[in-house]
Order: sequence, then structure tokens, then C-alpha cells
Amino acid sequence: MPRETDSRKRMLRAMSRLMRRQGYGATGLNQVVQESGAPKGSIYFHFPDGKVQLAAEAISDSGGALRRLIETTMQSAEDAPTAVRRLAMGLGAALAGSGYTDGCPVATVALEAAATSDVISRASSEAFKSWEAAIAARLADFGWSAEAAASAATFVLSALEGALILSRAYRDVGPLTAAGEHLASALLPPA
Amino acid sequence: MPRETDSRKRMLRAMSRLMRRQGYGATGLNQVVQESGAPKGSIYFHFPDGKVQLAAEAISDSGGALRRLIETTMQSAEDAPTAVRRLAMGLGAALAGSGYTDGCPVATVALEAAATSDVISRASSEAFKSWEAAIAARLADFGWSAEAAASAATFVLSALEGALILSRAYRDVGPLTAAGEHLASALLPPA
Repeated sequence: MPRETDSRKRMLRAMSRLMRRQGYGATGLNQVVQESGAPKGSIYFHFPDGKVQLAAEAISDSGGALRRLIETTMQSAEDAPTAVRRLAMGLGAALAGSGYTDGCPVATVALEAAATSDVISRASSEAFKSWEAAIAARLADFGWSAEAAASAATFVLSALEGALILSRAYRDVGPLTAAGEHLASALLPPA
Repeated sequence: MPRETDSRKRMLRAMSRLMRRQGYGATGLNQVVQESGAPKGSIYFHFPDGKVQLAAEAISDSGGALRRLIETTMQSAEDAPTAVRRLAMGLGAALAGSGYTDGCPVATVALEAAATSDVISRASSEAFKSWEAAIAARLADFGWSAEAAASAATFVLSALEGALILSRAYRDVGPLTAAGEHLASALLPPA
């Protein structure tokens, strides 16, 4: 594999940003070259398999960044209801702050490519699983059993992903706020 | 507006099906012509504004169909927990039955086009709002106040939309099943 270079990183970041805003299908390699300022023709040097490889690596990068954000946000809270409420509020603030363009960095491309690209499907699933694991790990810190934490983490991620779609469509953080409140009630510690 | 014809309907259905599976960006008008068997060149006769108009009308059609499915499914249940559990199971069965290709008919295109097309954004938001209203109306039947029903409906739709994304990505109905169970617990009638 070629070593990590600035232009490689810039291409990955541009691809992540474009996919987050408009999806995989609408993003052309020319646009990635333009946005990243990388030399034309260098895409196939760094990503010999082209757009699919660039997309899959961009998904892994965004997946890692969001996992770290989930960890930091949940670490800052002293109980599960507060942790999920903060997660929902943080996602809402980021979405609103971007003018309702930056939703989940993986959901759009995951939906588009689920039926058509195994490589992208795999990268998307791994990102989602890593977020579930981060949520479950923090619930376990709060004393949840592994099984209860895993099931609740799947539910929390589902509710947040769906609320991101609705909030983005409505250009209103209401659905994320509602998700935070309902999840907080649902995550009162099991008796 | 041209009168509703068979080829018009076939084009709308083909567009819905293609957008549901692969999104808006990846769907070309040639593919719609091919899948629908409609005469080439007839797209601009029926949809003078082209792909955007075809997509927006296809979203409205799918939106109406899913709203009726939500209504029928929830009508068949005698309490809120049963109603949402059935909704989650029904969506899971449809997704698995399609080989994990048919998720939400609106989410993919809503995410792709949120930042780029006002016409598509509006059609997507209207579909989501109509589903929320259908869920809220049934919760009101079960004795919920209008305010509590509206907030819970937003949360239910968020959780189901997100669970559809995860179930599709994992090729496993687990997240929808988990959403159904957690939502059923969360929707025990307010004291």
C-alpha cells in the first residue's frame, strides 16, 4: 500500500464530506479531485480500485471519528440517561451547525450501496457495529449486563440514526431532541 | 397535467423500486425506461421537469402506500405496544423477504437529496410527516393525549427508520426486532 500522504488524506476527507452531504451516487471522482485540491490522476495511484475503494476507506475514517466522539460524549456523563441525551444533543448541534447538511457520515452511502457493493456494505456495517460496541461498552460501565447493554445499544443507535434522518429532512432538531428524551426514559437502569 | 396512463404509472413504480434499492444518484432515466417498459422519450411527456419531478412523485406514491400499511397494521392491534411490535415485525418481514434490498422507500433519497433538491426534500418530509401522523392518530385512539402521541410517534418513526438502516446493512432483522421490543416497553400507557 502507498504510504499515507497529504494528498491521500485530503482525498479521503473530501470523499467523506461529499458522501455525507449528497451520497455515493452523486459524488464523482472529478469533484473529489476538485474539493481536495489533489493532483488530477493521483486518485488511481492512491486508490487502485477507484471510487469503491476510496469510499470504503472514507467510511472507515468517518466511522472511527464518530466512534471516538461517541466515546468522549458518553464518558463525560455519569449515568446512561444523561449519556444518551448528550449524544442526541451533540448530533443535533453538529447537524444544525452545518446548515442541516452533515447527518450521519455513513447512513446515506450504506443505504445506496447495500444492494450493490459488497466492499461498501462491509465498511458500513463495520462502522455501525463499532458505534454499537462503543455505546454498549459505556452501558456496561454503568452496570448493565453484556446482553442488556448490547440490545440497548442497538436500539439507541437505531433511534439516533432515524432521528438524524428526520431532523435533516425537517431541518429541525426536534426529532433528535425527542429521541434523546425518550431514550433517556427508556434507559433508566434495569431494576 | 397529462392524465394518469399505464406507462406513467409504470414509470413511477419503476422509479420507486430503483430509488428504494440504490438511491436517486445511481438511478438513471434510461434504467427507468428499461425497467418500466415505457416508450423511450415518454418520460419528458409525462414528467416535463424530468428526473426530479419523477422522483418527487414516486416518493409521494411510496409515501402513501407505506402510510396505508402503517394504518392497517396498527389498526389490527388492540394496544400501543402490540401495534409498534407488529409494525417492526412487518417491516422486518418485508425487508428479509426482498433479500434485504427493500428498506424504507424514502430514506435513501431523502438523505441524498436533502442538501441539493428542494422539490425532493419537500416530498420526503411530507411522506415522513404523514407516517408520523398515522402513528400519532392510532396512539390517540389508545387514549394518548395529542402532545404525548405526537412526540412518541416521532420517536417510533425514528427508531424504525434507524433499525431499517441497520437491519439492511447487517442483512439481519435483529435491529428491527430489538426496536419492536424496546418500543413496546417504552410505549406502555402513560400512568
